[in-house]
Amino acid sequence: MTQYKYFLPEKDMPTHWYNILPDMKTPPPPYRHPITLELMTPADLATVFPQALIEQESSQERWIEIPDEVRDALKMWRPSPLYRAARWEKALDTPAKIYYKWEGVSPPGSHKPNTAIAQCYYAKQEGVKGLATETGAGQWGSALSFATQLFGLEIKVFMVRISYDQKPYRRIAMETWGGNVVPSPSPETNAGRAILEANPHTSGSLGMAISEAIEYAVTREGWKYALGSVVNFVMLHQTVIGLEARKQMEMADAYPDILIGCVGGGSNFAGLFLPFVKDKISGAKSDMRVINVESTACPSLTRGKYAYDWGDTAKTGPVAKMHTVGHDFVPAPVHAGGLRYHGMSPIICRLMEDGYVEARAYHQNEIFEAAHSFARSEGFIVAPETAHALQAVREEALACKESGEEKTILFNCSGHGHFDLASYDAYHRQELQDYDLEDEKIQQSLKRLPNIPV
Amino acid sequence: MTQYKYFLPEKDMPTHWYNILPDMKTPPPPYRHPITLELMTPADLATVFPQALIEQESSQERWIEIPDEVRDALKMWRPSPLYRAARWEKALDTPAKIYYKWEGVSPPGSHKPNTAIAQCYYAKQEGVKGLATETGAGQWGSALSFATQLFGLEIKVFMVRISYDQKPYRRIAMETWGGNVVPSPSPETNAGRAILEANPHTSGSLGMAISEAIEYAVTREGWKYALGSVVNFVMLHQTVIGLEARKQMEMADAYPDILIGCVGGGSNFAGLFLPFVKDKISGAKSDMRVINVESTACPSLTRGKYAYDWGDTAKTGPVAKMHTVGHDFVPAPVHAGGLRYHGMSPIICRLMEDGYVEARAYHQNEIFEAAHSFARSEGFIVAPETAHALQAVREEALACKESGEEKTILFNCSGHGHFDLASYDAYHRQELQDYDLEDEKIQQSLKRLPNIPV
Repeated sequence: MTQYKYFLPEKDMPTHWYNILPDMKTPPPPYRHPITLELMTPADLATVFPQALIEQESSQERWIEIPDEVRDALKMWRPSPLYRAARWEKALDTPAKIYYKWEGVSPPGSHKPNTAIAQCYYAKQEGVKGLATETGAGQWGSALSFATQLFGLEIKVFMVRISYDQKPYRRIAMETWGGNVVPSPSPETNAGRAILEANPHTSGSLGMAISEAIEYAVTREGWKYALGSVVNFVMLHQTVIGLEARKQMEMADAYPDILIGCVGGGSNFAGLFLPFVKDKISGAKSDMRVINVESTACPSLTRGKYAYDWGDTAKTGPVAKMHTVGHDFVPAPVHAGGLRYHGMSPIICRLMEDGYVEARAYHQNEIFEAAHSFARSEGFIVAPETAHALQAVREEALACKESGEEKTILFNCSGHGHFDLASYDAYHRQELQDYDLEDEKIQQSLKRLPNIPV
Repeated sequence: MTQYKYFLPEKDMPTHWYNILPDMKTPPPPYRHPITLELMTPADLATVFPQALIEQESSQERWIEIPDEVRDALKMWRPSPLYRAARWEKALDTPAKIYYKWEGVSPPGSHKPNTAIAQCYYAKQEGVKGLATETGAGQWGSALSFATQLFGLEIKVFMVRISYDQKPYRRIAMETWGGNVVPSPSPETNAGRAILEANPHTSGSLGMAISEAIEYAVTREGWKYALGSVVNFVMLHQTVIGLEARKQMEMADAYPDILIGCVGGGSNFAGLFLPFVKDKISGAKSDMRVINVESTACPSLTRGKYAYDWGDTAKTGPVAKMHTVGHDFVPAPVHAGGLRYHGMSPIICRLMEDGYVEARAYHQNEIFEAAHSFARSEGFIVAPETAHALQAVREEALACKESGEEKTILFNCSGHGHFDLASYDAYHRQELQDYDLEDEKIQQSLKRLPNIPV
């Protein structure tokens, strides 16, 4: 009989995170200050982040020990299962072997708590009292609400107004874990008040919410800011996914020819592929393919520019070298809110520049078609973000059917879609729109990049 | 370090269901015909259910083999994890050891697919084309939609109108798995049309939906009816829960002093406790306690009468001897829709009469308090039904704190509450009502029981 799931015992959970920085051919260039555009010092970052995270951000240690308290909290649901998608393979009639890491088993339902827990731990260690953050669709806000609760920290979540109104279940979940959630822009910060005064009926944006969260954190004694993707330490914390997957693939006597994941800021997929891509960098597995999948609504890797840009719309956060469609680019309102980020993890971008990873983008109707194909074979209803990965898996599996190749595909199934069912309903009603993005819009936005010699 | 989870490998999944009928001191009395009230023959049941299920309903075989195709489908998520609630124990400051079986990992999010898959398998084997069913809150309807998809069966779900309107996410999930869902009463059946004519704005009821589903099935060539709880074969299929739990408790070097679960029709808890309660019947573990937890809004075990009654409001289904508050009793609109059933599994009722199990009932504010206590320690947000079990666990754990006893508690965590967050919101807003049920209302309802000498 087919074996569907591979479980690692808790005792075999990784003891160390894998830091790819010392193994990269070219390291990602350092951050620059949002106002001066000069190279940023650790001291500049210290007003925002806990010290331990700033050290991890540029650490050259290949293996960084996971503190016991972090491992203990991760064990609430980790190691997560590795699945063989045997029923989906059959439905697709492909000779490909499809495996997926299922991160939807975490209490908040995605990979996000892998870093939320680590960030809360270090914050608590350094005497931080509370963490402020922003959230769009709500995956990150729920993960941080859940994690702060475990470590006895306060939390303030600025949730983009339109999501706050349209996704009440995510807001309620955050509140159930003790999260203090307000719609952004809010009257609680200078930034929020200024925006509301100019435009009282704005639906908000991630950029505005970031500005509010940073202001809230830096103006309060004992508070810091928490970030759910993009930066190096978040990628580091997510490597538990790939480290577990390596062991589980060994249990299945398999090694991936193709790795696939969706990317917004990049953390779920980097978490999976970094512990594998080192084999490609070393030359041990030079023909392995690593496919980053983004939304056509926000195609930073496929149509953006590799350049320094601000991480947030309001230009208050660090300036990073990354593939970007511009910090004030406004993506079409696709349902995959987590992929509507203008930039990308500097690590992923550097790896792409050096030819180790590739990227593609999809429209939303095709990704929902893939999500339905998956749900009707494997059972799980995934998040719209995750569905982007599914569509790439389907394409590769069908290519194998065409060529007759028995390739091994491993993808990250980053989260469930239980709070995103309105988007499934829109698909059923054939009301989902595919947006064709004009190049002109990206070019306009790229004109406003900071003036830093590349 | 604490071990939180106990996983069985797939190969150790039970090969046989445990049938308690031959081990019961007194068997549950046979069903009676809904109209004649005479003893029902297997032929009477054959218009409604597949033959294999009718045989299981009164089988005297202690162990019934699980067909390979059923095991293979169950392995999509089974064996489900057994958790040690170590963080909750700490929060409750109790010497009790708390374990739970986590059934929320199934794609539809509850224990319901354990029987849905078996029912679809046997239906398919017997050449059935489609299955009709009713659903209230939607757990059962989603499980059956998921399962029919796996076996290539058609499905028709009559969903109680008020739930159809109030719980769109459950409806959308069913549609994602290919379910054909209509609000009940519907214009698609004689029963539905008659009700709509008399009362065009009715919000529907489970009784009405059952009538429609049975009519839909029996008036269509190749269609049968599927039922998600109460009857013996459903309890049988759910014993995989308890059989797995026994092995996992052995891995944890533990045996339960107290077993706890919520009961509506009884299937999730029977699934857990039947493979344990046989040790109590045999005398091997005579001091083990088995606590059934119901809602004060529908207290069949705690305030109902042990008597013959119709299984459905419209009096079209079998008449069973069970604890009942009357087939036309209308429970208060508590959020735990799955516990709003007037009757109870005849097996559980018989075990209660013989003193092997006990029961208690809770109001909804206290069960949501327990659900929050759990979510903030263990992470998982459970269904309102499941939260009833949590409140009993909390009471027993706090009693252990009082007495200093280190009892081992095992409960069934029957499903997640991701589609029930509106009820959590009502709790946060302090808008949840506790209903005090007058004895007079139950007595009135009990006057309409069928006239069968007890």
